[in-house]
Amino acid sequence: MVEFMKLKRRFYILLHPRPTVLITTVCREGKYNVMPCTWHTPVSWDPDLVLIVVDKENYTHKCIMETKEFVVNVVDDKFLDKIMKLTVHGDKVDKFKLAGLKTMKARFVRAPILRDAIAYIEATLYRAIDVEDETLFIGRVLDARVRSDVFRAGGWDYSKARLLLHHWENIFVKPDPRSVVAAPR
Amino acid sequence: MVEFMKLKRRFYILLHPRPTVLITTVCREGKYNVMPCTWHTPVSWDPDLVLIVVDKENYTHKCIMETKEFVVNVVDDKFLDKIMKLTVHGDKVDKFKLAGLKTMKARFVRAPILRDAIAYIEATLYRAIDVEDETLFIGRVLDARVRSDVFRAGGWDYSKARLLLHHWENIFVKPDPRSVVAAPR
Repeated sequence: MVEFMKLKRRFYILLHPRPTVLITTVCREGKYNVMPCTWHTPVSWDPDLVLIVVDKENYTHKCIMETKEFVVNVVDDKFLDKIMKLTVHGDKVDKFKLAGLKTMKARFVRAPILRDAIAYIEATLYRAIDVEDETLFIGRVLDARVRSDVFRAGGWDYSKARLLLHHWENIFVKPDPRSVVAAPR
Repeated sequence: MVEFMKLKRRFYILLHPRPTVLITTVCREGKYNVMPCTWHTPVSWDPDLVLIVVDKENYTHKCIMETKEFVVNVVDDKFLDKIMKLTVHGDKVDKFKLAGLKTMKARFVRAPILRDAIAYIEATLYRAIDVEDETLFIGRVLDARVRSDVFRAGGWDYSKARLLLHHWENIFVKPDPRSVVAAPR
């Protein structure tokens, strides 16, 4: 007999592992910021919309409110050693220097792109939705690009795109390229 | 030199693979429905809130609007053969019969739980947000349970929880249990 046990807290662990992205922003005074995020989801195609969940106390929250734009950077396991350094508050720290992150200019927004990302999405704020301690930022996708060596027509090549899926806290897991399977239609 | 290539459509593929869940609902007249979903995210703990993206044309949309509740069922690779059968419109079909899905009674909602799910979250509607062709349904978590044989204190045991991560269309991938790793703090 299979038994179900109650989760008294952290219900959200059941919806992990989730692709880790780094949200890059620029604040009004020109300072760059970067924040790891796994609570995100696509919302729509036509128009292309992406949603990220950001705590109101985060510096990223302030930056998006001020400049109305952000970049979603998809990262791989090369970021494993850097990722936890990026969870500190970005107000008084230069997290790019702290973690040795290089940036490059975006085409449509002033927020930077991480040069070592394996994909990125430039977005302009479409709507901000206030929910308890969080804001749901929905971005309109202006440009979405992926590194051509880790991607095929049908999506990620998991043998090359070593995506960091967030398990919880500082634990991550990767997709198993040998497990790719087609469900019968 | 690394090259980035532009995605002209399907930006959202960059945010996959994502845990596949089946949303179960009940309509006003008592009819059950079930729908696969990978566009979801936790939103908050304290209070516990979960968000799912549902197309306005889906039968599930009608049911949640009518009865203000849903269950998020997390599924594993035992559902691989059934999953695509559940993508049809639920209005005129009994998808439970079609895919051979067994249900059990929930504790707090009238929507059913899938007996073979490896975890489930009972939720009552907290807020519905209209976004283009979609509605973002935010549910307040009333109960979250997980099968005790596939879970440890720190989350999923991926050698036992063979989660179906959605790649795109009918393609799925699973987490590699050997790849679990702790990021240095």
